[in-house]
Amino acid sequence: MKPISKLNILIANGVNLDLLGRREPTIYGKHSLADIEDKLRQVSPALATVFALPTVELTFFQSNHEGLFLEEISKSWDAAVINAGAWTHTSLALADRLAAVSLPFVEVHISNLSNREEFRRHSYAARHALGVCYGFGIDSYTAALSGLYAVLAARIQSTIP
Amino acid sequence: MKPISKLNILIANGVNLDLLGRREPTIYGKHSLADIEDKLRQVSPALATVFALPTVELTFFQSNHEGLFLEEISKSWDAAVINAGAWTHTSLALADRLAAVSLPFVEVHISNLSNREEFRRHSYAARHALGVCYGFGIDSYTAALSGLYAVLAARIQSTIP
Amino acid sequence: MKPISKLNILIANGVNLDLLGRREPTIYGKHSLADIEDKLRQVSPALATVFALPTVELTFFQSNHEGLFLEEISKSWDAAVINAGAWTHTSLALADRLAAVSLPFVEVHISNLSNREEFRRHSYAARHALGVCYGFGIDSYTAALSGLYAVLAARIQSTIP
Amino acid sequence: MKPISKLNILIANGVNLDLLGRREPTIYGKHSLADIEDKLRQVSPALATVFALPTVELTFFQSNHEGLFLEEISKSWDAAVINAGAWTHTSLALADRLAAVSLPFVEVHISNLSNREEFRRHSYAARHALGVCYGFGIDSYTAALSGLYAVLAARIQSTIP
Amino acid sequence: MKPISKLNILIANGVNLDLLGRREPTIYGKHSLADIEDKLRQVSPALATVFALPTVELTFFQSNHEGLFLEEISKSWDAAVINAGAWTHTSLALADRLAAVSLPFVEVHISNLSNREEFRRHSYAARHALGVCYGFGIDSYTAALSGLYAVLAARIQSTIP
Amino acid sequence: MKPISKLNILIANGVNLDLLGRREPTIYGKHSLADIEDKLRQVSPALATVFALPTVELTFFQSNHEGLFLEEISKSWDAAVINAGAWTHTSLALADRLAAVSLPFVEVHISNLSNREEFRRHSYAARHALGVCYGFGIDSYTAALSGLYAVLAARIQSTIP
Amino acid sequence: MKPISKLNILIANGVNLDLLGRREPTIYGKHSLADIEDKLRQVSPALATVFALPTVELTFFQSNHEGLFLEEISKSWDAAVINAGAWTHTSLALADRLAAVSLPFVEVHISNLSNREEFRRHSYAARHALGVCYGFGIDSYTAALSGLYAVLAARIQSTIP
Amino acid sequence: MKPISKLNILIANGVNLDLLGRREPTIYGKHSLADIEDKLRQVSPALATVFALPTVELTFFQSNHEGLFLEEISKSWDAAVINAGAWTHTSLALADRLAAVSLPFVEVHISNLSNREEFRRHSYAARHALGVCYGFGIDSYTAALSGLYAVLAARIQSTIP
Amino acid sequence: MKPISKLNILIANGVNLDLLGRREPTIYGKHSLADIEDKLRQVSPALATVFALPTVELTFFQSNHEGLFLEEISKSWDAAVINAGAWTHTSLALADRLAAVSLPFVEVHISNLSNREEFRRHSYAARHALGVCYGFGIDSYTAALSGLYAVLAARIQSTIP
Amino acid sequence: MKPISKLNILIANGVNLDLLGRREPTIYGKHSLADIEDKLRQVSPALATVFALPTVELTFFQSNHEGLFLEEISKSWDAAVINAGAWTHTSLALADRLAAVSLPFVEVHISNLSNREEFRRHSYAARHALGVCYGFGIDSYTAALSGLYAVLAARIQSTIP
Amino acid sequence: MKPISKLNILIANGVNLDLLGRREPTIYGKHSLADIEDKLRQVSPALATVFALPTVELTFFQSNHEGLFLEEISKSWDAAVINAGAWTHTSLALADRLAAVSLPFVEVHISNLSNREEFRRHSYAARHALGVCYGFGIDSYTAALSGLYAVLAARIQSTIP
Amino acid sequence: MKPISKLNILIANGVNLDLLGRREPTIYGKHSLADIEDKLRQVSPALATVFALPTVELTFFQSNHEGLFLEEISKSWDAAVINAGAWTHTSLALADRLAAVSLPFVEVHISNLSNREEFRRHSYAARHALGVCYGFGIDSYTAALSGLYAVLAARIQSTIP
Repeated sequence: MKPISKLNILIANGVNLDLLGRREPTIYGKHSLADIEDKLRQVSPALATVFALPTVELTFFQSNHEGLFLEEISKSWDAAVINAGAWTHTSLALADRLAAVSLPFVEVHISNLSNREEFRRHSYAARHALGVCYGFGIDSYTAALSGLYAVLAARIQSTIP
Repeated sequence: MKPISKLNILIANGVNLDLLGRREPTIYGKHSLADIEDKLRQVSPALATVFALPTVELTFFQSNHEGLFLEEISKSWDAAVINAGAWTHTSLALADRLAAVSLPFVEVHISNLSNREEFRRHSYAARHALGVCYGFGIDSYTAALSGLYAVLAARIQSTIP
Repeated sequence: MKPISKLNILIANGVNLDLLGRREPTIYGKHSLADIEDKLRQVSPALATVFALPTVELTFFQSNHEGLFLEEISKSWDAAVINAGAWTHTSLALADRLAAVSLPFVEVHISNLSNREEFRRHSYAARHALGVCYGFGIDSYTAALSGLYAVLAARIQSTIP
Repeated sequence: MKPISKLNILIANGVNLDLLGRREPTIYGKHSLADIEDKLRQVSPALATVFALPTVELTFFQSNHEGLFLEEISKSWDAAVINAGAWTHTSLALADRLAAVSLPFVEVHISNLSNREEFRRHSYAARHALGVCYGFGIDSYTAALSGLYAVLAARIQSTIP
Repeated sequence: MKPISKLNILIANGVNLDLLGRREPTIYGKHSLADIEDKLRQVSPALATVFALPTVELTFFQSNHEGLFLEEISKSWDAAVINAGAWTHTSLALADRLAAVSLPFVEVHISNLSNREEFRRHSYAARHALGVCYGFGIDSYTAALSGLYAVLAARIQSTIP
Repeated sequence: MKPISKLNILIANGVNLDLLGRREPTIYGKHSLADIEDKLRQVSPALATVFALPTVELTFFQSNHEGLFLEEISKSWDAAVINAGAWTHTSLALADRLAAVSLPFVEVHISNLSNREEFRRHSYAARHALGVCYGFGIDSYTAALSGLYAVLAARIQSTIP
Repeated sequence: MKPISKLNILIANGVNLDLLGRREPTIYGKHSLADIEDKLRQVSPALATVFALPTVELTFFQSNHEGLFLEEISKSWDAAVINAGAWTHTSLALADRLAAVSLPFVEVHISNLSNREEFRRHSYAARHALGVCYGFGIDSYTAALSGLYAVLAARIQSTIP
Repeated sequence: MKPISKLNILIANGVNLDLLGRREPTIYGKHSLADIEDKLRQVSPALATVFALPTVELTFFQSNHEGLFLEEISKSWDAAVINAGAWTHTSLALADRLAAVSLPFVEVHISNLSNREEFRRHSYAARHALGVCYGFGIDSYTAALSGLYAVLAARIQSTIP
Repeated sequence: MKPISKLNILIANGVNLDLLGRREPTIYGKHSLADIEDKLRQVSPALATVFALPTVELTFFQSNHEGLFLEEISKSWDAAVINAGAWTHTSLALADRLAAVSLPFVEVHISNLSNREEFRRHSYAARHALGVCYGFGIDSYTAALSGLYAVLAARIQSTIP
Repeated sequence: MKPISKLNILIANGVNLDLLGRREPTIYGKHSLADIEDKLRQVSPALATVFALPTVELTFFQSNHEGLFLEEISKSWDAAVINAGAWTHTSLALADRLAAVSLPFVEVHISNLSNREEFRRHSYAARHALGVCYGFGIDSYTAALSGLYAVLAARIQSTIP
Repeated sequence: MKPISKLNILIANGVNLDLLGRREPTIYGKHSLADIEDKLRQVSPALATVFALPTVELTFFQSNHEGLFLEEISKSWDAAVINAGAWTHTSLALADRLAAVSLPFVEVHISNLSNREEFRRHSYAARHALGVCYGFGIDSYTAALSGLYAVLAARIQSTIP
Repeated sequence: MKPISKLNILIANGVNLDLLGRREPTIYGKHSLADIEDKLRQVSPALATVFALPTVELTFFQSNHEGLFLEEISKSWDAAVINAGAWTHTSLALADRLAAVSLPFVEVHISNLSNREEFRRHSYAARHALGVCYGFGIDSYTAALSGLYAVLAARIQSTIP
């Protein structure tokens, strides 16, 4: 990874995450996507400081249209945090594209998938992920961001002569 | 969760993690358990500040003896970060005890389990976990600590009148 | 369910149902979607009278684009009759959205799925349905409408003091 | 199907349906078999009118004895609505007999089988059915009757020169 | 098949094939979709001559949007060569549409699916295909075109009195 | 692959293919092995010209004796087209030998295996094949030959300085 | 087996075999149970002579009531030919009873079970049978009787000093 | 089946049946192949008389070489009794050839396969058989011959005007 | 549970248990149902005393007719000890009825099911049971009675103010 | 079994049973191991009297260390009641050791395993047990003791001349 | 085993082992069958001396023809070391014959089967083997010979009075 | 492998092997661990001579405590012979540790695992083993030692310049 002065990071939410906050609150909590965006924008600079990262710019994206989602993740991001919703378990196309574009990404889920239906325990994309975080509610994104920043920092440091 | 002035958190590593650093470095990396302890002791205060947590005291424990491990996690901890190693996939006893003692814990794995043998994709304990982080190398612990602190902070705040 | 003077009911047909009538007639019959719409518009008022329902307005929708279909079913309908076509068996996203929006719906299939390929016997969404009707040819919609009207009537009556 | 002036239709309920009303009301509702008989006798003439059918005579039968049930369905009925209860999932003998006697029948279940134990999702007889309705509570019978009348009407009309 | 003076043949590439050439070259090779188009346009007339076919016009289409792809294949083509990418293994909708429109098509894959993950060995659509070719790299398309031309020629000849 | 002035290619047909033409014609067509030999001998020079290959000599071999078949494919061929018949699905010995002798070969089947019994969908040898063609009737051999010639031509050209 | 002057043999037919002759004739043929009785009564003496057996008395029994069937086979028969119909595949009770009473019996099926649904390939009772014959149409009974007589003759002869 | 004055029937025994008599006598009995030949030659004329068949000539064949066995069964026999030994469970080639040559045959096994290892319960060829007899010891051949003669007699009689 | 002066307890034995004592004695022992009745009548008063229960009246019932068995267990019993024989593993109807009538019952088996065929390890009814005892021979009933009395005693005592 | 004046019986509780009473009380009840010991010490003499056994001495043992548990059960006990907790489902070592030392033991579980997770339905050791009791809460031990005493009494009586 | 002055031992290598040395050397090593023969002829006398065996004569045999292989192992050998190659996993005929002829044999594989494809982990014949050795490269034969000699020596010694 | 003057080899026996000799002698034989130690100490020098190895020192270790066993195998051994008993099939921890410490080891079992329960056919550790020997009774250790010595000798020789 080449030394970089600013990191462009995509926070991508897939199908049905537009409903967050009004969707089955006993499983997904009462927070909306906007709440997640607020929280990440708030903690991101502090976390970047903890791990001695350069400036980080977060871009938020949500879509229920798989084609649009696939094309968004192929743009030139330095890294991504991705919650693909139900596509996690059914979209081989998404997993193939993530492998194809060699994007460092963290897979995130709000609920504890180990505690739900059997078919939610399989993720096509997870094997291509830099890391996976789930079960913390909206703080799955927080944990993902920390882990991502820590790894990116280590990669940047290892490239400094 | 009652208001608390100091959080006692257990970082428990199970079977074979004493070999870390000399065990299959292409899978588990070149860091030892001591390196993990150093890193967590370093970032923990900063992360606690980010999430506005009270003082946190980390206790590190490793054992290859399942009986000792089971009894250690039953002591009075406020929370735990647990990497149970191979027991993750085979020890129902550990999962049952974690459910029995109602300990908030994050399950952690160094490698990306989704990318390894089929039998490593099942965890008996994960459904009882507060959250799960894996694949970030030793920064799986970092991500876990961040997610844990964020959730604990939210719980503490929700109990303040 | 609050007392209501008019019921807005969506009749939603998913992927490939635009081909009805020219698609494998030995399986799906010779009727087109337009024939179904004609028949339902004809029998609906009579069925509403049989079950003592208020005025019912039927809206017909078909799409081969999953994203559009997902967004259509999230609009403010009182109930729906849904034939998701092949998505029935593959789209967890659709099932999750139906669960999320709490829409009372009847799942409908034209052919007798119990008589076809094994993979057509599983429906992600059916467990969230108010009821399921299949095998009657285009009269699966008729049966579904009757069952839906009977249940809605019972719900309305139980809310009258 | 030859033109007919009166349709003799069997409403057959199998094992344990004698307990309806006092059996697990959260699953099966609070209505008894007698309630179902009352409701069907009430809506049947109206539904027959909607679909322009000749006179329909309904005969109700319930038995916990499989041998008696098998012999009842072999009598000369024009069509049937059958809720076989637990036999649905275990009695190949029933399915074979229904196939053998070529009786047009609708399979009915009160509860939403897609929402229950795995073993209730398989029906030996369903592939021989004219149609299947389930999940509407006692109105599964209503939906079934509507679907059956609509199909019988279409068959009768197609035989009129 | 009626005698025809010009054959309109669709070469349809599905999801992620826009990335060809920059996607995992050890699996998919270094050629882009444009290279495939060039090669097919070059060999097509010669192959048509070998099999004594009339003029053939090739139309190339690629999309990451399943709805658009489904609608494209329903247009009036004489035959098609289809590489559906990841949809091959997950899209029952595509297979159903191919069966519905009765389009003679050859299923093509660049890599040797028998040599990859288990889930890539199943194709929903293949049973409706006129033929299947895979494993030759971009020459899977070449083989497919040859096989298609040979079969079309035989069909045309058998209709000449 | 070293530059070569003549390619010796084996067309090997395994068990039961001696019966072709009188074996289940609805599945395998009415052509005999001799018809296939005639057709391939006819189109081979033209196809070699299309792909700018040197002279190709085709040798035809059929046996119902697995030992003889195994020993034939170990001789010094430049490439092969192999239809192993039922051995495809049951003979690990054949697959092992093909891997052992590093023979570039195309696996061919006359019928569309995706459309037949489940046990015909697995091939032990296919993962060692250069390519696979099936479903085109006897033109599966034609497609295979084209694909093989295209790949061999590319290999030869890449070795010319 | 003690020397015996007359053999009492039960020919027992289970559930749905009362419908034979009018049940799916393409599978079960056009013969009724009475036709089978006639044929067996006719060939039995000749077969007994072929195998040098003493007098054989055949008793025919059919029931759709499992309890009655179980109690009939427990009576004092020397041997039996049993076609249990659908119970073959579902009644563990019948298999257990046959094992319990130590009755030498031949299991018989009219159709070729290897050619039908997967669930008809398993028989609970067959492992307790002296022999099994199926697929010959009504002559499965003939084959069964021959095999039974041959075995009984051998047993009788081996007890003669 | 055309009227015939003499029936040529093959009694074919496959792999390992040369060992009969000295192979695991608790499973296969103490009789050798020669004993079976003696018994069949003795009872065949009597059985032919019982079923009013013309002259029957029995030909015995045994081989451990699958290729030879396959070629023997393709010769011009009127019918066959086949005990393929272990090939029953592993040779798809044999099953395919039996289907290809349209030979009326009875599948025979000496032991009761329902009482042995799971893998012996599957036969590739049985679904193509006219009938199946097993478990009677060497009298499985006797039963098979009776069943075969009865069916052949019925076929012959049905062709007499 | 209301205070009670006499407990009416059903000891119900299902299909084939009439054969006890003459059925496979190496598995089920040499005792008959009458022996079990004698033993239970003898130890019941002493056990009732041990657990300080009121008077207990035992009623014994056996049937091979499932319909009769189902209707017997629906009568007004305070509790039951049930050995359903083979129905344990196949009768969903029995399990459903036991759940429906809310009868406290102990499931009993004479033999050690864990030591027998795989299909005997599943019981439809066991999940509705108060407790399960098996493997003790006829003393499975003794153990069941003790466990039942101990639990009933605890329930009665907990209702005494 | 030799006549004996005193029976030494081990009541062994395995992993996590030290937590009883504070572990998931809705599943395991509110009683502690000490409560179980009190109850068994109280009822044991009375039960011994009911079954006419000699003096019985109960020894209680609990361990979370599998090695210690294995070694304890190998000491010289006359019989044992064993609740192995989670080891029931995962420890082949325990099952092998119980088989090796030929200890008559009853397997006990507090909860109704048939009503819990699928993986709790399998016990490695149960097939070696004299009997199994579960589901009665702490009275599973009571039932086990009764069953054990009854069987031991029968064994002792059968050895008295 | 009768006392013997010379042991005739067959070293039998099955299908494809003629290719050893030029077949996938990373899996099977660089040694040929001749190298194995040389090594075994060299160490055999020394090993025979270590275990105090009489003279041993080794005979080497390889065939790709299953029929020949089956007939070779049926000759009069005192024991055998058998590497059946791919037949290990597919030839029930070989396993049956080995069981039938009661030949003491050691099953040998060059590679570590536990480290390869799933289908290579099953051996039909292994359960009939005296012992199994694999993974040592060509020294699997050495280990096998040692184990065989040790066991034969023990058997011979136990027969000396 | 560096040239070495003395080889330290661990013979490690895991859980329950302390019971050898008194544990199920029909499966494991009548020899104790001490007998194995005696035999190996006796043949080891002779075998070392056969394969031209330097001095070998054998150390014997047995434990029922998994933690102790894991720690023993991590000490500095040159190679090991390991019989892990039941842990073979259940301890992923053991397999992981063997992989981690890169210890050349032979996996040994006394009985023929291919001839026992299905669950004994899987070994977590075997894929990391240098070789595997089983089924020879205590001479599995002898075979293992021979194979190990042969391989070590070859490795040492290949490092001598």
